[in-house]
Amino acid sequence: MDDRRRLLQQKGCIVWITGLSGSGKSTVAFAMDRILNSMAKVSYVLDGDKIREGLCKDLGFSAEDRRENIRRVGETAALFADAGLIAVVSFISPYKRDRDIVRELVPTGNFIEVFMDVPLEVCEERDAKGLYKLARQGVIKAFTGIDDPYEKPVNPEIVIKAVNEHGACYSPDEMARIIIHHLSEKGFLSDRVDGWNLPQNPGFVSRQDPLVGPNPPELRSYPGEAEAGVSSKAGLSRSGETSKFYGRGPDRNFATELASAGEMSGTPPTSAWSGQQAWMDAL
Amino acid sequence: MDDRRRLLQQKGCIVWITGLSGSGKSTVAFAMDRILNSMAKVSYVLDGDKIREGLCKDLGFSAEDRRENIRRVGETAALFADAGLIAVVSFISPYKRDRDIVRELVPTGNFIEVFMDVPLEVCEERDAKGLYKLARQGVIKAFTGIDDPYEKPVNPEIVIKAVNEHGACYSPDEMARIIIHHLSEKGFLSDRVDGWNLPQNPGFVSRQDPLVGPNPPELRSYPGEAEAGVSSKAGLSRSGETSKFYGRGPDRNFATELASAGEMSGTPPTSAWSGQQAWMDAL
Repeated sequence: MDDRRRLLQQKGCIVWITGLSGSGKSTVAFAMDRILNSMAKVSYVLDGDKIREGLCKDLGFSAEDRRENIRRVGETAALFADAGLIAVVSFISPYKRDRDIVRELVPTGNFIEVFMDVPLEVCEERDAKGLYKLARQGVIKAFTGIDDPYEKPVNPEIVIKAVNEHGACYSPDEMARIIIHHLSEKGFLSDRVDGWNLPQNPGFVSRQDPLVGPNPPELRSYPGEAEAGVSSKAGLSRSGETSKFYGRGPDRNFATELASAGEMSGTPPTSAWSGQQAWMDAL
Repeated sequence: MDDRRRLLQQKGCIVWITGLSGSGKSTVAFAMDRILNSMAKVSYVLDGDKIREGLCKDLGFSAEDRRENIRRVGETAALFADAGLIAVVSFISPYKRDRDIVRELVPTGNFIEVFMDVPLEVCEERDAKGLYKLARQGVIKAFTGIDDPYEKPVNPEIVIKAVNEHGACYSPDEMARIIIHHLSEKGFLSDRVDGWNLPQNPGFVSRQDPLVGPNPPELRSYPGEAEAGVSSKAGLSRSGETSKFYGRGPDRNFATELASAGEMSGTPPTSAWSGQQAWMDAL
C-alpha cells in the first residue's frame, strides 16, 4: 500500500458527490478529474453513465435495486481507492444509510462526502435533461425530490452551494478546486504517510495547479485569507477541526470557508470573490 | 483518454489469468503487480478474496451466480482499464463464453487472456488450500476440474506451463515477466498512441525492470535470442503475428517462445534457461 502511495504520490480515497438531479454533481466530478490530471494526480469518475450500462445493467429503479446499485458503486469505488486512485463518485444516492454503508468500506477519513446543496427549485428550473418535467407529469415515477425523498447529509466533509453570498454562481472549476483543496489539506495529494515523508519516488514528480496552490507540507495561506475575513461561525468537521477553504481566484485572492451542513443551511459560503462564469450554462 | 495515457505512460488493459484452482493464478498476479510497481507502472489485482467479500458478496456458487460473478468482475476490470490501469484479474473463470463476454467489454486487443496450463494432477497434488481433498470427499460440490468442467481457452494471448522443457518449475517472477514482456511488446507500457509518440509528460518517468528489459520503442533482442533457438513451431497470435518472448534470466540470457494454446498442448515452452526457484513452494 505504501509502495502504491509512493508510486502515485497520493493517497487513495472516495470523493462521494451527492445531491439532486441537476445539482451539478457530474459537472464538478469531471472538472475535478481534469484538474487533478493536470496536477499529475490519478483520479477516475464513476457515474451513472458508466455504471448503469455496465456493472449494474441488471438493475432497475425499485428501492431495492437502487440500494444494490449504490452498494456496488461503493464497493467498486473502494477498490479504486485501494488501488491508490482518487475515486470520484457522482450519484444522487438519496438515502443516508446507503451512503454511510459506503463510508465504512474504506479506512476512517478516506471517504469524503460532498453535498451539492442546490435547492430543488434551482435544479428543477435548470432541468437540463428534462427529467423534472417528466416527473411532474407523472411519466417518471419515484423521482428524487418530487415523489421520492432526498435525505441530506447530516455531517458531510464538504458542502457546495450553487451561489456565493453575492448570488453569483460558482464555475465548475471553482467548485472542483474547493474539493481538491480539501484533498490537499488532508494529505491525499502527497505521499506523506502518518506525518512521515516517504522516500521520494524519482519516477513521479507532482505538479501544482496554480489555482489550488502547493501541496502539503508546504501549504501556505494566501494574502487574501485575512482580508476575506474568515467567518467566526466555523463549522466543525468530523475530526473536530475547523474546516476551511483557502484558494485564489483568477484575478484576486479569496478565501472561502466551508461550514458543516447543519450550520450551512441558508448561509451561503463566505467569499470575497464572485465567480464570473455562468455555471448553469455548463450543465 | 490520451491525457490519462500520457500521465501514466501506459495503456489500460485487462490481463485475465484463467486456470484451475492451484494453478498459480494469484501468485503470478501479485508478482506482476510488484514488478510493474517497481517499473513505475500502475496495476491492480482483482481476485476472489477482494471480490467475493465485497462486490459479489450477495452471490453464491450456483452456475448462474458464478456467471454473474465473472460478469461483474469483468465490468469492474473494464473500468480499471478505462482508468488507464493494468487490471490483473485472477479467477478460475472456467467457462469460455463468460471470458469471451469480458473480452468484448474493452477495445480490441486490450484483453490479454493468460491460460495457466497446469494439469489437474499437478494442481491436485499441490492442493495448497485443501480444496481438492474436500471436493473428492464430496464436501465441496461442483468443484472445477472434479465435478464441474474447465473449458480451456481456444486461442489465448499467453499460455504459461508449470514447467519448462527440462521439467524445471518457473518461479512466480519468471512467469510474471513473461506476461509483462508481452505487455511491453504490445505497447501497453508506453505512452505511444497508434505509433506516434505523445509529448512527454515531465511528471512521470518510467523505469526499466532489469529482467524485463527496456520499453518499446527501444525494445532490443538480447544476445541469447539466437543461441536459444526460437522454435519454428511458432504459434500465431490473434493478430496474426508470431508471439514471442525475449527475456533475460538472472545469470544468463534466454529466449522463450509462447505458442498458442492449440499448439502448446503437451509441448512445454522452449527455454535455454531453467528456473531454479521452486515455484510450488511459493504457492
